[in-house]
Amino acid sequence: MFAAAHRLVLSHVRRYCQKTPIKPIKLRISEAASGAELGAEVKVQGWVRSCRPQKTNLFLHVNDGSSLQSLQIVASSELNDPLLTFGSAVEVTGILKKSPHQKQSVELEADQIHVIGECNPVDFPLKVKERHSFEYLRQFPHLRCRTNAFSSLLRIRSEATTAMHSYFKENGFVQIHTPVITSNDCEGAGELFQVEAPSTGNEEDENFFSVPAYLTVSGQLHLEVMSGAFSKVYTFGPTFRAENSQTRRHLAEFYMVEAEISFTESLEDLTKVMEDMFRSATEHVLAHCAEDVDLFHKHVTPGHRETVDSMLKKSFPVITYSEAINILNRSSEKFAFPTHWGCDLQTEHEKYLVKHCGNIPVFVTDYPYDLKPFYARDNEDHPEHTAAAVDLLVPGVGELCGGSLREERLDLLRARLEEVGLEDIYSWYLDLRRFGSVPHGGFGLGFERYLQCILGVDNIKDVIPFPRFSHSCLL
Amino acid sequence: MFAAAHRLVLSHVRRYCQKTPIKPIKLRISEAASGAELGAEVKVQGWVRSCRPQKTNLFLHVNDGSSLQSLQIVASSELNDPLLTFGSAVEVTGILKKSPHQKQSVELEADQIHVIGECNPVDFPLKVKERHSFEYLRQFPHLRCRTNAFSSLLRIRSEATTAMHSYFKENGFVQIHTPVITSNDCEGAGELFQVEAPSTGNEEDENFFSVPAYLTVSGQLHLEVMSGAFSKVYTFGPTFRAENSQTRRHLAEFYMVEAEISFTESLEDLTKVMEDMFRSATEHVLAHCAEDVDLFHKHVTPGHRETVDSMLKKSFPVITYSEAINILNRSSEKFAFPTHWGCDLQTEHEKYLVKHCGNIPVFVTDYPYDLKPFYARDNEDHPEHTAAAVDLLVPGVGELCGGSLREERLDLLRARLEEVGLEDIYSWYLDLRRFGSVPHGGFGLGFERYLQCILGVDNIKDVIPFPRFSHSCLL
Repeated sequence: MFAAAHRLVLSHVRRYCQKTPIKPIKLRISEAASGAELGAEVKVQGWVRSCRPQKTNLFLHVNDGSSLQSLQIVASSELNDPLLTFGSAVEVTGILKKSPHQKQSVELEADQIHVIGECNPVDFPLKVKERHSFEYLRQFPHLRCRTNAFSSLLRIRSEATTAMHSYFKENGFVQIHTPVITSNDCEGAGELFQVEAPSTGNEEDENFFSVPAYLTVSGQLHLEVMSGAFSKVYTFGPTFRAENSQTRRHLAEFYMVEAEISFTESLEDLTKVMEDMFRSATEHVLAHCAEDVDLFHKHVTPGHRETVDSMLKKSFPVITYSEAINILNRSSEKFAFPTHWGCDLQTEHEKYLVKHCGNIPVFVTDYPYDLKPFYARDNEDHPEHTAAAVDLLVPGVGELCGGSLREERLDLLRARLEEVGLEDIYSWYLDLRRFGSVPHGGFGLGFERYLQCILGVDNIKDVIPFPRFSHSCLL
Repeated sequence: MFAAAHRLVLSHVRRYCQKTPIKPIKLRISEAASGAELGAEVKVQGWVRSCRPQKTNLFLHVNDGSSLQSLQIVASSELNDPLLTFGSAVEVTGILKKSPHQKQSVELEADQIHVIGECNPVDFPLKVKERHSFEYLRQFPHLRCRTNAFSSLLRIRSEATTAMHSYFKENGFVQIHTPVITSNDCEGAGELFQVEAPSTGNEEDENFFSVPAYLTVSGQLHLEVMSGAFSKVYTFGPTFRAENSQTRRHLAEFYMVEAEISFTESLEDLTKVMEDMFRSATEHVLAHCAEDVDLFHKHVTPGHRETVDSMLKKSFPVITYSEAINILNRSSEKFAFPTHWGCDLQTEHEKYLVKHCGNIPVFVTDYPYDLKPFYARDNEDHPEHTAAAVDLLVPGVGELCGGSLREERLDLLRARLEEVGLEDIYSWYLDLRRFGSVPHGGFGLGFERYLQCILGVDNIKDVIPFPRFSHSCLL
């Protein structure tokens, strides 16, 4: 405190001695806390995370979202103000100095504290020093970003997004903005959201787009268009499912990373990219968000760091669907859904397979042809008829990625589309095979599931800023 | 040709002499054309852009989307094949060598050419050596990426996206995925697309989300949520308007870059970011996509490079709305919409102002309060009542960015919301002002308009992969 008072005098003297007063350097909290501008007069702005008035001193912790770390402010207790409450916004000027305390290396000796925005602690739903449950916080989508855990999550999500883009850019992929509104209604007809403009009343045309329009369930078909001109493309954006479920694993609006690669030779061309991308993004996030990730690995799912480390240590095993079924059939585990060749793999099966393979990500390839959509490439391997499709299953989550080689052979694709009566609607898609068709394939990764996987977050609603699901669209 | 034949022999000899044949190095066209692996046996894959069989030699140009440049293939005419047509997909192996021709520095002496995917030139809507108009190409959204111009556009769009993200990342912004589906219906009620799941028939609840849900017109309000915890945030994603117009300037689905900054002092805190972002992204694109940008500046809008260069040379002038009205009132130009203080600026006015200021981007600030939405900050400057709003107008396009300081004062915001009867719906928004409110502001940039501006593309439908507008939702 003596030092603070001394500084106060010094800074007044300094101001007095100069014709123009020194303008304090404006710093973000992360810059200040990192020890930049030690000894200088600085200004910081942020929100109060804690306020401890003592006899002679006042201790504040101020955060501005630039990092998990708050900056410790030390001031004379004369600067105390009843409006300095948890959640209030403040501007502080003073001298940055080395902290004598162990907890932080730097602190700010304040000579001015100004409350910019009040926060009544009685009305504010977040309480100081309380660790609110994720469930409680979901009621306040407009305020939960003000907690340490959720602001860490948002910084990680931002950095993981950067990591995904970097991976694709470094590997020569062109980013394509595939459309959200589409007239394709191929997959999961029952799970499509329809889009319509308000009726104008006076037009014969009842649809804004002249055709029924939907929210996209995948950018794949649009990426395949681009695969006729670019050998590597990807997209990263929102996708939609009108699934009437409220599980910990599903959202009505979620983000997908999707890639499409031309001139493929085998599924290995896809699994290599999936594994590299997973590894590269995860290493990037662990390196660039160490502190934020630690919060999750220490306080949300203790011990999860070991799971993540072991995922990165070994290369991901590859088993065929048929092998997977054998493993499941041989298992002593009682599944809610019994298994047989031809059945769909349920989450319980996927989780068992992951455990069986050492609790690391595992690829399952060559699924029954009849389980896969029309575009999956026929392996022509009768009698056990399979398609060249692959899923990546990961610990805690189950299916993280799904992909396939696409049927590039015009005659086979046309025959299958004719079978289901879709050859007219998809004549543009057949065109892609008519003109310069090449073997190609791709996959999609559920970005929220990826975050759940690396952070150990149980509920998908807690890894997206504004979750949308059946009966809920807050804000 | 002699050299090619010689190489052919050599490579046979080499193969014969070794127990395991040399596996050719797989290269992308851009890698091969840059002179990597000169002298080595390589394999390239791509689509034929031209095929010239001569007496002894066959010349092919092959492109794989990795750059505008195609690779010249030289082969013995014995390797000619009637299936080697414009648009067909090929795989070529051979030796990379320095080209004796001026047009390219490297060519591939082929010893094998394999047609992977045929392309019947009669049926294929794109014709060799023809420069199809953008209008013609819009009929073929699934094929137009196979033209030089549109593949250049897509590479530029990808790189400009990277540039925007880089700018924000380097300046400490956290990226937020604001939602596409929202229950807010604040702005432009008539221009909202509504989202609904197919009715299940047996539920009392008629809405999937229990409330009416819409496609977002802006991520601003959701970014403002984040502005209560992070001092700098941004979002980059699709936004929607159900405008029943088919102009060269409007799309039903378009991309916006939006930023929100806390602890602002004046509009200058916003104009600085807008100008820096524009400058930084444009310099990045010009540096990283020189060849692709040249195609537009030479063949699409000749002379546009000078416009772009002059935009980057000077700092952007700032005029107030009142000054703008004076300029327009004094002008001898006949406007379709006459001007007076209080009127909205039309595109014709915006374009005039840009020309008046030297055909460079210009900021217009402090618009009439009544023209702006409820969240714009009141300048409290009666009698000419204005709001702290700002638009950035640019050559050829008009409005590129719009932004404002936001009303952070609870009492003023509440009064305005009460006036329009929205205080209940926006109680969550008022909460942001109740708890730790800070002065803040932000803006949005129309990404397609940005591309139009730097490339000189007249129609917005030609700068987005899959344009959506009234009566059109192809694919």
